[in-house]
Amino acid sequence: MVFGNLGADSGNGVAFTRSPATGQQGIYGDYLQNAQGEDVVAGIRNTVPLQDLEKIDPASYRQLLEIMRTLENHYRDLCDIEFTIERGKLWMLQTRVGKRTAAAAFRIAIQLVDQGLIDMDEALTRVTGDQLAHLMFPRFDVGSDITRITTGVSASPGAAVGKAVFDSARAVEQAEAGQDVILVRRETNPDDLHGMIAARGILTSRGGKTSHAAVVARGMGKTCVCGADELEVDTTGRKLTAPGGVVVAEGDVLSIDGTSGAVYLGSVPVAPSSVVTYFEGGLTPEADDLVTSVDRIMKHADAARRLGVYANADTGEDCARARRFGAGGVGLVRTEHMFLGERRQLVERLILAEDEATRQSALDALEPLQRSDFVEILRAMDGLPVTIRLIDPPLHEFLPDLTEMSVKVALAGENATEKDKKLLEAVRRLHEQNPMLGLRGVRLGLVIPGLFAMQDRAIAHAAADRKQAGGDPRPEIMIPLTASVQEMEITREETAKVLAAVEEETGTHVHTMIGTMIEVPRAAMIAGEIAQYAEFFSFGTNDLTQMAWGFSRDDVEGAFFSRYIELGIFGVSPFETIDPDGVGRMVRIATEEGRSARPDLELGVCGEHGGDPEAVHFFHQVGLDYVSCSPFRVPIARLEAGRAMVLESVGGSDSR
Amino acid sequence: MVFGNLGADSGNGVAFTRSPATGQQGIYGDYLQNAQGEDVVAGIRNTVPLQDLEKIDPASYRQLLEIMRTLENHYRDLCDIEFTIERGKLWMLQTRVGKRTAAAAFRIAIQLVDQGLIDMDEALTRVTGDQLAHLMFPRFDVGSDITRITTGVSASPGAAVGKAVFDSARAVEQAEAGQDVILVRRETNPDDLHGMIAARGILTSRGGKTSHAAVVARGMGKTCVCGADELEVDTTGRKLTAPGGVVVAEGDVLSIDGTSGAVYLGSVPVAPSSVVTYFEGGLTPEADDLVTSVDRIMKHADAARRLGVYANADTGEDCARARRFGAGGVGLVRTEHMFLGERRQLVERLILAEDEATRQSALDALEPLQRSDFVEILRAMDGLPVTIRLIDPPLHEFLPDLTEMSVKVALAGENATEKDKKLLEAVRRLHEQNPMLGLRGVRLGLVIPGLFAMQDRAIAHAAADRKQAGGDPRPEIMIPLTASVQEMEITREETAKVLAAVEEETGTHVHTMIGTMIEVPRAAMIAGEIAQYAEFFSFGTNDLTQMAWGFSRDDVEGAFFSRYIELGIFGVSPFETIDPDGVGRMVRIATEEGRSARPDLELGVCGEHGGDPEAVHFFHQVGLDYVSCSPFRVPIARLEAGRAMVLESVGGSDSR
Repeated sequence: MVFGNLGADSGNGVAFTRSPATGQQGIYGDYLQNAQGEDVVAGIRNTVPLQDLEKIDPASYRQLLEIMRTLENHYRDLCDIEFTIERGKLWMLQTRVGKRTAAAAFRIAIQLVDQGLIDMDEALTRVTGDQLAHLMFPRFDVGSDITRITTGVSASPGAAVGKAVFDSARAVEQAEAGQDVILVRRETNPDDLHGMIAARGILTSRGGKTSHAAVVARGMGKTCVCGADELEVDTTGRKLTAPGGVVVAEGDVLSIDGTSGAVYLGSVPVAPSSVVTYFEGGLTPEADDLVTSVDRIMKHADAARRLGVYANADTGEDCARARRFGAGGVGLVRTEHMFLGERRQLVERLILAEDEATRQSALDALEPLQRSDFVEILRAMDGLPVTIRLIDPPLHEFLPDLTEMSVKVALAGENATEKDKKLLEAVRRLHEQNPMLGLRGVRLGLVIPGLFAMQDRAIAHAAADRKQAGGDPRPEIMIPLTASVQEMEITREETAKVLAAVEEETGTHVHTMIGTMIEVPRAAMIAGEIAQYAEFFSFGTNDLTQMAWGFSRDDVEGAFFSRYIELGIFGVSPFETIDPDGVGRMVRIATEEGRSARPDLELGVCGEHGGDPEAVHFFHQVGLDYVSCSPFRVPIARLEAGRAMVLESVGGSDSR
Repeated sequence: MVFGNLGADSGNGVAFTRSPATGQQGIYGDYLQNAQGEDVVAGIRNTVPLQDLEKIDPASYRQLLEIMRTLENHYRDLCDIEFTIERGKLWMLQTRVGKRTAAAAFRIAIQLVDQGLIDMDEALTRVTGDQLAHLMFPRFDVGSDITRITTGVSASPGAAVGKAVFDSARAVEQAEAGQDVILVRRETNPDDLHGMIAARGILTSRGGKTSHAAVVARGMGKTCVCGADELEVDTTGRKLTAPGGVVVAEGDVLSIDGTSGAVYLGSVPVAPSSVVTYFEGGLTPEADDLVTSVDRIMKHADAARRLGVYANADTGEDCARARRFGAGGVGLVRTEHMFLGERRQLVERLILAEDEATRQSALDALEPLQRSDFVEILRAMDGLPVTIRLIDPPLHEFLPDLTEMSVKVALAGENATEKDKKLLEAVRRLHEQNPMLGLRGVRLGLVIPGLFAMQDRAIAHAAADRKQAGGDPRPEIMIPLTASVQEMEITREETAKVLAAVEEETGTHVHTMIGTMIEVPRAAMIAGEIAQYAEFFSFGTNDLTQMAWGFSRDDVEGAFFSRYIELGIFGVSPFETIDPDGVGRMVRIATEEGRSARPDLELGVCGEHGGDPEAVHFFHQVGLDYVSCSPFRVPIARLEAGRAMVLESVGGSDSR
């Protein structure tokens, strides 16, 4: 035992070899004269900056700097050190590799490379996709006139500004009136779901990262600070009281930072992420040392990775963005998104058609619209693969809701219009008990004549248009929800026929692969057979998760996931990362058996898991060719795909 | 080439060594003098009974009888023979094992055993579960005053009597008014679903065994004759015209026989099946030769089979019936069926409870009711295992429908009662997009405090009551919808705690196994882990089929199954028999891995497949311990389980 409390020539301190906040090199730490470690931690007495030790005890100071250099060279990383000086003699108490912020992690990794302490492979293992994600969220631009009233748990990242409301009904009401709101609750429960959907952000005073609010907000991708236990939330009085007696009433503006957990009074301006601006092409790699560090690490990750990274994107604009973010292709175009807005009327006409001619004319009206969408997408992704999924959701999703329509017609009574009555009849006829398990995907294609053929034609013509214009279109046609080999066989044959007809018509050949989603459990079980008729598989891990577990995300995430996480049934929602034992086993089986039936089978994943760091490692290990995710998550997947390769080659696993 | 058309000493005939209609031994066949085979088939000239040949050509007749005996001894079965006599010389043209009715099959098999031509094992392979099922349907008691107007395709067995209606809306209307109706259509489509549900039987003039009407009716277990193409159905004029100008108008009574395809005018009396009466104990095995034959074959099947046959039954009465039908236990008690009728109010109270005390008092009120149900069931099945499944369906199934309730409250406007408004609020809160994939099964147990414990206590007390009364209760508690090992572990522990507490309280020990359904695909994937906490698995192949294929039976059977069967995507609905490659593979995986983790794991199936002949063979091969099915199908499963064993031992497969 050494003593730092034996007088002015003794003391205790902590030191960091670099700044854990920014990664900058320099002297960082605190020193307290005539004190033990407990005194520093207790915070009763004020420490002095470590630099001051140079004056207090120059010999010990010089020795400390020497030791810090030695330690860094040994650990080849930022070290966090505790030391004591006993009557002028320096004693090291402990050291460890220090924690750091996301920005510091990237900067330090590159500094160490430049110092020759680690190589780029190792640098890649020193950062994570989650850290990169943190750098990509917009941040509050916190100036001097900003009041932080408390800090809670950073439950779901992002920056949200809005008027405080204290119940969900009010949140919905205000949101419908065009207001941005922050829903403030002691804690949330399933009844708050509609309020959470309506709010820009959620703030609770109880519960941690696995509370209902946290789990549901993350599922929705909504900013959330939870467990801000310094706040006294009074839902009846519609106000909250913060430390120091600050009162926030309904309608007062709050700003919450889901990345740091900070809660601010008033509207704090939001600054875009420089890393995103760089990915978008708005900053050069040399812009600042953070962007430079990210750029160098990303380049190395891209060079290292075996796994391709594609994006899910539905418009030319999305595709262009995905490309800027480094996507090597588009893994999922959801064509049903092209049926919204004004086009919904055409779909309505298609559904309500009572004869072949009306139906066909509705399809004929949709075809040129789809075709021009595809031209735009193929132009944006010129030279890269674009996987287009034929329409997937049940048709009644394009019609009004049964209950709303029933109430409307009932209230109108004898004055109900013929159109509404006819619409209600169709809604009733198409209503399904479990639409997720109903007439959708390839089933629609087999039951509704001409629907898939219209889409196939639009794709083929768009590709021919692009090729004639000197482009390099690479469309792939993907059949959704295949569960049997016959569905694939029949649909493939019909698709190939349309492609051949358009080739004949236009005199233009565009190589177009035909493949399928693997998203129902049975498809995974018979993947070897399906592969005979599919040139590629794309795992739809969202639906596969829903059907493997037997729960629909919409229904269960808000209803019981937080309880399940609390009970330890899962550590994290299986919609956030892949469940390796259940869903993952199906992916493994389908990969092995699909590839053994067709060695050149192309294998990817287009569920949201494609952008999850842990899942990217899993898909790398299973041996997929690519992952596809939202454009925003493309850099994260690129980074993790590179890390997966490096970690595999050093035989390690991701322990961060 | 021989000629039967060379004069009166020539001719052509067909002969059966036994009656293909009844199985009776005797001389059956037809003969036509001075004719070739085509003349007999063409039906232009009238044949004479084969017996008449004795007078026409006694020598050939005696020779024919001699040859028939030789052929039967050779084939050891009913033979179907074609012969020609050319100028007094008998020539055999061809012979084959003859087709026969279900009744004939059972009678002939036993006759052949008694003649020493085959043994009982072989007799068992000569009949099928489908034939036994045919014998178990009630039949029309067709007397002389009955008019058969046509015969169509026997699409879904049974005997139905009702007033003809020509559209589905009328069918619903009339059924609601308490009328029995037969829905008559040219063909049905998904829009006819509600009419098909309302009708006693369905008659169509178009389409075969795989038409929409046939597929959906079989799915519903509803009598159906389809493709009666001699009928001219005029839905606009609300009438049909049969051969001979017979007109049946809306409201006229029809009787349709889904087993034979016959359509009768008027109300034909229905006779119970003698085979069912025998199983029910209302006839001794000696009652008639058909019953005797069935009895002897069933006894042999029971002696031969390795597979247990249990029943799905929810009341003491059902259980008693199942026992009479030969069930060796109950594989599935659906406890939610005990929450219907007057008890629905208690469930409503439970759901609407706003505090712990109200909720608990609703549970307390339900407990003694459940307990007395279980006492009754355990009494009926004394000495045999009874597998009781804890509540499975989502709670909103006990509340009114969302759309109906919304319309009711909207129409009442300001006059809506507080109760209705509160109910609507609860219905809205509990409403699920996909209830099949929602808050149900073990999830309910984990989320709603006290619900499973109430059921566990009721079971444990009922068992203690029975034991104290000198009975031999053998309850097993089954957790529904398990998808993860933690769900099983937690629920098992809670259940065991309740069992121990009741044992303590009553001083009575009843050995009670705790196990789980395997009905979500993930459970099959991790069965080895689940088996650590489950003493038995019961495959819920209905849900497993729904989730493996990703379709809900309610939504898809009427919507596109006939189209799928037409396209050859499946030969038969996967809800009718097991899909071996997809669902079956999951059953195989779970069986192998479950048993390797726990060698004494008890394995059964309680989906409807448990009573399907083909599926019984599959479950036998996979190595399950038992199948459980509806009481009515228990004899069919017993027969097929015996056949599976015999066919396996001769290395053959079921080719019938």
